[in-house]
Amino acid sequence: MTREEIFAQIQKKKSFLCVGLDTDIKKIPKSLLKEADPIFAFNKAIIDATAQYCVAYKPNIAFYESLGPKGWESLQKTLGYIPKDIFTIADAKRGDIGNTSALYARAFFDPSSSGLSFDAVTVAPYMGEDSVRPFLSYPNKWVILLALTSNVGSNDFQRLALKDENALVYEKVLSKSITWGSEDELMFVVGATQAEQLESIRKLIPNHFLLVPGVGAQGGDLAAVAQYGMNKQCGLLVNAARSIIYASSGEDFADAAAKEAEALQTQMAALLGRYL
Amino acid sequence: MTREEIFAQIQKKKSFLCVGLDTDIKKIPKSLLKEADPIFAFNKAIIDATAQYCVAYKPNIAFYESLGPKGWESLQKTLGYIPKDIFTIADAKRGDIGNTSALYARAFFDPSSSGLSFDAVTVAPYMGEDSVRPFLSYPNKWVILLALTSNVGSNDFQRLALKDENALVYEKVLSKSITWGSEDELMFVVGATQAEQLESIRKLIPNHFLLVPGVGAQGGDLAAVAQYGMNKQCGLLVNAARSIIYASSGEDFADAAAKEAEALQTQMAALLGRYL
Repeated sequence: MTREEIFAQIQKKKSFLCVGLDTDIKKIPKSLLKEADPIFAFNKAIIDATAQYCVAYKPNIAFYESLGPKGWESLQKTLGYIPKDIFTIADAKRGDIGNTSALYARAFFDPSSSGLSFDAVTVAPYMGEDSVRPFLSYPNKWVILLALTSNVGSNDFQRLALKDENALVYEKVLSKSITWGSEDELMFVVGATQAEQLESIRKLIPNHFLLVPGVGAQGGDLAAVAQYGMNKQCGLLVNAARSIIYASSGEDFADAAAKEAEALQTQMAALLGRYL
Repeated sequence: MTREEIFAQIQKKKSFLCVGLDTDIKKIPKSLLKEADPIFAFNKAIIDATAQYCVAYKPNIAFYESLGPKGWESLQKTLGYIPKDIFTIADAKRGDIGNTSALYARAFFDPSSSGLSFDAVTVAPYMGEDSVRPFLSYPNKWVILLALTSNVGSNDFQRLALKDENALVYEKVLSKSITWGSEDELMFVVGATQAEQLESIRKLIPNHFLLVPGVGAQGGDLAAVAQYGMNKQCGLLVNAARSIIYASSGEDFADAAAKEAEALQTQMAALLGRYL
């Protein structure tokens, strides 16, 4: 999917919501456990309930991988069920030496190999350029590189100051990696719990799309994210997972998810009106 | 598996060889493609041929994941076939927010969830402490944290100098993470192509085991790794993958792998004799 197509969706739906399909077999309603594929049954109901309010879905791969081969089958079915005009992100945080990252790229981008064809995959930057490049060789596919994450552990290494340049580690990740790929193939993860950093991040990367986790269960502030992070093509995909998919633990989970997604979409429509 | 059990194996086999099961469907002998599970058939032959020369096996998960659900079935069968006294490493380079890393830990350590029970998993440090902790909650399981990798991209971020302490990024990863877990649950990846760094690394972590990739196809020097990296319990697991498993591309691939593994084991026996 191209950047223009993503932006067209955002304008059409007045939303920059990404729904995180972090579906934990231990948290879905007990009644679904009698289904042949409880994970897919849950996701199908969530997708039906939320598709009109969001522009992207992001399954976090850990939740599927934790179930072994049948988890990957649930993932395939889920990806196949997502409407084709909605952007799909494999939140995998992969990265290895070039020879091996090429195999991870096959896993998420080459349906003839893995059965999966996501629009984007999240990648960890620690191993540097050759660990990222193989993902960039697929046309119209995206790398979403971790920059500043939403968790407490982001303080351990990402925010350390470097000696020979006036930059923190995550700022160096941004400034270095934008030489590896264009704004049409590279996005960045910037946590919503770090909204105050978005202003300075936008000086380094004014035009790139950002995937922003941490709104909802992690406590990030949507209005602050829009104020400091939005650019002229919106430039934001804001993810909410647990606050939507587990809005109710009962039989009404899909209705509750729809209400939660709609509430976020309504806020987003107002923010798009204000800043765009 | 405990540290003492790993060391006992090293002494018994006079080897600190780890065989990397980086099995690429595009590189195995064509004759195996008629097997019901070509990847497992290849791995089974490699394991039969090399088990007497090595103390660990390390499937790189990318190679299995790239094949979708059936790749994970091949991985399960492969892990089940490895003799129980040999250390097993899921080279996965995972890491996510704590809530999600707990699911990756289930994937590799909890057979009731995923069907897999590796002894160890490799983890990427970029997201910090809470991304690593969930893997440390399984008794007798190991986290092998990326410190200084064997690829060119290790120069991009790992070797940058920090401002407020006299350390490079990877040295900070070492000094910080050793407060998260003991020498009985934490190892580090240090590439063999960086053997000259092992002397200073051993000042920071004298007792930890190191997983050392990069000998063989990547050009690392085994003698230098032993000279600078070995400690009183050996403290090294040296991985070779492509140079062993693809030693021959013909029908004699298993014999060729055995010869290559034996040659490395013979060198390792001499090095253990010299330094231990």
